[in-house]
Order: sequence, then structure tokens, then C-alpha cells
Amino acid sequence: MAQDVASLIAQVQAAYARSIDNGDLGAWPDFFEEQCTYKITTADNHSQGLEAGIVFANSRAMLVDRVTSLREANVYERHTYRHFLGQPWIQSQDGGQVRSETSFFVVRIMRDGTTDIYATGRYLDLYALQGSSAKLIERIVVCDSSRFDTLLALPL
Amino acid sequence: MAQDVASLIAQVQAAYARSIDNGDLGAWPDFFEEQCTYKITTADNHSQGLEAGIVFANSRAMLVDRVTSLREANVYERHTYRHFLGQPWIQSQDGGQVRSETSFFVVRIMRDGTTDIYATGRYLDLYALQGSSAKLIERIVVCDSSRFDTLLALPL
Amino acid sequence: MAQDVASLIAQVQAAYARSIDNGDLGAWPDFFEEQCTYKITTADNHSQGLEAGIVFANSRAMLVDRVTSLREANVYERHTYRHFLGQPWIQSQDGGQVRSETSFFVVRIMRDGTTDIYATGRYLDLYALQGSSAKLIERIVVCDSSRFDTLLALPL
Repeated sequence: MAQDVASLIAQVQAAYARSIDNGDLGAWPDFFEEQCTYKITTADNHSQGLEAGIVFANSRAMLVDRVTSLREANVYERHTYRHFLGQPWIQSQDGGQVRSETSFFVVRIMRDGTTDIYATGRYLDLYALQGSSAKLIERIVVCDSSRFDTLLALPL
Repeated sequence: MAQDVASLIAQVQAAYARSIDNGDLGAWPDFFEEQCTYKITTADNHSQGLEAGIVFANSRAMLVDRVTSLREANVYERHTYRHFLGQPWIQSQDGGQVRSETSFFVVRIMRDGTTDIYATGRYLDLYALQGSSAKLIERIVVCDSSRFDTLLALPL
Repeated sequence: MAQDVASLIAQVQAAYARSIDNGDLGAWPDFFEEQCTYKITTADNHSQGLEAGIVFANSRAMLVDRVTSLREANVYERHTYRHFLGQPWIQSQDGGQVRSETSFFVVRIMRDGTTDIYATGRYLDLYALQGSSAKLIERIVVCDSSRFDTLLALPL
């Protein structure tokens, strides 16, 4: 049933967001399959079918590298982020694979306490179901705004 | 069980929000029954029992008209909006009808990338269950703020 | 199953947020067990293991007192607040007790309509399951920011 799958995906996404927001970046690549696609792009680029993204990775190893370099730069420690996700909308389910779309909204908390909206957009996801869990085969992060912090320190 | 109904309503609301946020306004009236009530009002007016609303429709045909006029004015293309909904709170379930209350929060993304909080409030809904789906018999949108963009370009 | 528990907790949390946002503060203590812990602290203090909190209560009676004094001061009527909660992440389930972690985000709507982000953070909860409901044995509210409205008028 669609609701059961939606609940499962929602639970996996809560864990995903939590690993980033709590600074446990080392766990983040584990939400992906070894062969995977992770892309951050803008709504303008996406609607025009442009392939180029702000961030692109096509393996879990690349995601591990990204996390390592973020850690070495210590960039991610300067601010805190918090992800809020909408209810995943289940587009299709085919055997062990699920396509879903989920709105996200990320808040940034600066060291002085100032809080602002960092990014909004939607995740276009393809999941491989694995028993009572699911891993990402593909996540395309489509940001609503085309204006970006050039650093994009944290994963979305 | 209340949770099953809550999951179903959450899934329907995710689809509703998605149709607006992705610009698929033509699909929006289909979330309502043919005989339906759709009203946008403020918390002040609602708590005083005032009937007057900012927007009022009492049939799906009126919602179709509204969408058509928005399209002709092209107003909805100037900005992007994104809806975030809380977990629906199930107030009552009586046979095939469900009353629920859901907090919402809408972000507006301007063409220059500026993102702000556009509206917050709650949906007071009455749904007709239809197998594994549900349609709105009534949606009263109670906005927290009394200050409005006079346009209210997009459905809430 | 983790998803069933997550759905139950999500439903209880929706009711909790609703009681505060709709001004029904008298119902708020009923979400807790008689013997309970309620603490508001900051991420900095929490990560350093500091016990001191901004707000601390260790019984439902203390929560009732707090609500009474808020009512007498009428502080909570000056503004409106709206809570948005992420999907609860189920950390563990042991017999009739569930530990969960949930991101929250509270918006404040001033009388003049201005809306801003009031607080973000996470709930570290311990629930006692009671049939189809659940009550809080412990809620530690960890706010992301260390800068606070000294009043902290409303419960989080």
C-alpha cells in the first residue's frame, strides 16, 4: 500500500536528515547504494533539462570523499543546519524500487543565534527497498532558488 | 485506526501541495468534491465567528474558474511557492467522512532568490473517504496573520 | 514495527503542538506522565553535558503551575505561535517505552502580522505507550540557538 511505503520512506528520510543536522556526516553516505547518483541543481536548470548541477556524484565513494573534505575544512562546524521534510509523495513503486518526491526546507543557525531560511526545494528520489529499510539509488536535489551560497557546505 | 487515516490524509495532502508547488494548478480542483466549500479566512475573523472570508468558493466549478483566471493573469508564474504541512490531526471519523486539522506554512521564493515566509495557519478539513483516497468536502484555510498580500495569487 | 510506532508518536505530537498553537494550554500538561521531566536547554549546553536548563520541571504539577502563571500574565496572548515537527525518528523501543528524536521549528506571528522563526531544535523524548496513545515520561527540548527571548512565554 502506498501509505506503508510512504511511512517507510519518511522514516528513512528522518534518519538521513538527523545524521546531517546532528553533525554525524560520516553516516551520510550509508543512506546511498554503492552505485548511486547524487546531484544538486536548481529548478531553472532542471526544468530546462540541463544536466549540469552544482554538485554531482555517481558513487558512494565520491560522497565519502566529499564528507572527508568537508571535515578537513571544518566548514560544517561554523553553523548549524536543520532539515524539515514534507510528507514523501510516492510517484511509483515497481518491485523493489520506489520513486518519490519530497519537499525540503533547511534552516541555518549562525553562531550568534541568527536563524534564516537556507534552502528550499524538493528531492526527486529513487529508492531500493531492502526489507524494512531503503537506500537511495538516486537523489536529485532541486533547489527553488538559483542564488546560492557558493560553498554549499553541507549535504542537502 | 486513527493512524491509518492520518497516513492516508497526509498522502493526499502531499499530493495537493505538490500540484500547487510544481505549477500544476489544473489538477488542484480535482482534490475537491463537486459540491464543496473552500474558504480562506483569518484567525481573528474565524475566532469571532465571522463568515466573511478573503476567498470563497462553494463548488469545484468555481475553483476551476479561479485557476483559469490565475493562469490568464500569469500571476502565479512570477514567484515560486512551497507548502509545508504538519502531521494531520484527526478530529473525528464518522463512516466515510473524516475531519482533520493540519498546520501549514508556505514559503515564497522570489525571482531574485529571496525566500520568505508567505503564510502560516491551519487547514480545517472535511474529507470524504473514497477507497484508498479522499476528497475534500470542505477546506477552511485559517491564516494566522491578518496582513495579506492582496493578490493571494496562489491557492493555499 | 518502527513505522507503526512512528505514526503513533507523530499523531500524539500533532495533538501536543495543536494544544499550544490553538491556545489550549490547559491541555498541555496532560501529554505528560505525572512523574515526568521537562527541560528546555541549548545545543551548546547539551553537548557539554551541562545539566542546567532554561526551563526545568520534574512533575506534571509543575507544568500545571507553569501554565497557570502564563495565563495570569496573559503573556501567551500577545503573539501567536505555530509549531512544525519533523517525522519522529525512533531511536529505540523497549517494552512499553519508546525513545524518539524529532526536529521542531516554531514560527511566531506578531499582532501586526510580522512572522519570524522563533525557535528551532529537537525534542529528545521518552514515551510510555498506553494502548493507542502515548504519554511523555521525559522531554528534553534542545534549542539550536543559544540566544533566547528571556520570556520563553510558551511551551515548546
